[in-house]
Amino acid sequence: MTLSASSPVGIFDSGIGGLTVVKAIQALLPSERIIYFGDTARVPYGSKSQVTIRKYAQDDAGILMKHQPKMIIVACNTVSALALDVVEQVGKGIPVLGVLEAGAELAVQHSRNNRIGVIGTRATIESNAYSFAINALKPEIEVFSSACPLLVPLAEEGFIDHPAAGMIARDYLAELVGWGVDTLVLGCTHYPILKKMIGKITGPDIRIIDSAEAVAAKAKELLAENNLLNGSGAPVSPHLLVSDLPRKFRSLCRLFLGTDIPDVELVEV
Amino acid sequence: MTLSASSPVGIFDSGIGGLTVVKAIQALLPSERIIYFGDTARVPYGSKSQVTIRKYAQDDAGILMKHQPKMIIVACNTVSALALDVVEQVGKGIPVLGVLEAGAELAVQHSRNNRIGVIGTRATIESNAYSFAINALKPEIEVFSSACPLLVPLAEEGFIDHPAAGMIARDYLAELVGWGVDTLVLGCTHYPILKKMIGKITGPDIRIIDSAEAVAAKAKELLAENNLLNGSGAPVSPHLLVSDLPRKFRSLCRLFLGTDIPDVELVEV
Repeated sequence: MTLSASSPVGIFDSGIGGLTVVKAIQALLPSERIIYFGDTARVPYGSKSQVTIRKYAQDDAGILMKHQPKMIIVACNTVSALALDVVEQVGKGIPVLGVLEAGAELAVQHSRNNRIGVIGTRATIESNAYSFAINALKPEIEVFSSACPLLVPLAEEGFIDHPAAGMIARDYLAELVGWGVDTLVLGCTHYPILKKMIGKITGPDIRIIDSAEAVAAKAKELLAENNLLNGSGAPVSPHLLVSDLPRKFRSLCRLFLGTDIPDVELVEV
Repeated sequence: MTLSASSPVGIFDSGIGGLTVVKAIQALLPSERIIYFGDTARVPYGSKSQVTIRKYAQDDAGILMKHQPKMIIVACNTVSALALDVVEQVGKGIPVLGVLEAGAELAVQHSRNNRIGVIGTRATIESNAYSFAINALKPEIEVFSSACPLLVPLAEEGFIDHPAAGMIARDYLAELVGWGVDTLVLGCTHYPILKKMIGKITGPDIRIIDSAEAVAAKAKELLAENNLLNGSGAPVSPHLLVSDLPRKFRSLCRLFLGTDIPDVELVEV
């Protein structure tokens, strides 16, 4: 397969949380065509087993490959943590970028006191993948992590400013803050829409790392290295594929992307 | 296929919330063999589309049919609301009982002021299936319903007494209580484990209908009518089938069933 600069950037996620990555890519690389797959029929992944997550990752990457992308971005932290090698196998040599590695790298760059906090789904946190990625870059860093399983449904339900959401987030974050981390990685693509609320809890001294922005910067670098940047052309709407179209879909798109989605295609998994 | 009293009772749910039905059946019919399937690889159903829910219901019923049950109980309110006919087709003539019909019937028996409240997943509530079922029995009853999508993850995470869960439930229930209902149907098999918290919010004047208990009573009736009751024999542990075995599985079983599960089999969907 020959890769060309005009080929699309493929992005997938367990659901539509990964649209935070689409938004970041659009902001940084407005001329890139984006093909996005969200596995809305089987979401969420973060509470499921590694075997199941790896099976789903294979399906998801296969769906994107039909559109001959020049790169695959795994917008799902859970898949990045547990099944990046599966995506690389399906990708047959095209660059594959996991949101996790990008977030880990940015966190390492920013931490001054070598104490980094990570929050994510249960599967992501139990995999220890963030600790491995961070310590591979800088072994002396101490990583403190906390699984925050309820933040995904709270984000999806739009409980962004609800006092109950703040109460739950405060419970999840209390220990992390107590450990004196100076950097906190939002290790789930749903969390950026709760960033303001999380920032209020962690306070001004803890730098929050949004993996969506981190992976967009990394994608730009990697495309440039491979001479695959699409530098020109008017911005085009992303092409969205989903495995289910639940009623809430449009309002969720608006929440994650900030705009309506004109073009959505239903695919079978 | 010949049905026999010694055949198992088949029960399925989108995940393991339906174990509240298993528990109710065990309490009422201790000699019955139970085969349970929980689609833990694709849970939850309640936020997905009707097309997807009907496809999953067909798979789930097919998995149970391999074990030649004498009856299928649909422990999932969402499937009961949107795909009971699919299960009946797959069941090829064996009795099929939906948790929704049983709950609706019991609510109609109990309401004195003809104002019934129903809470459930978004898919269940938007289907209006409870209103249809209740009004088919008694047209003059007014049904007030409210989708409570966050109660499922709150129950699964064991936030049973957490003040944030109470705050969210109070928000969901405020309107229902204001309408002056005297009966409230817990239209989701996850909700019975939040019954105490919900009862505190609704107060002593609103009778809470637990669909799990309602469907168990109905199952006993139906088995007796068909001469299929297994009246004798020592209690046996239910045979559990699941499509995924996430790490949290054992603690969830304990939460829903009150005991450990000795025998769990992983099946592909």
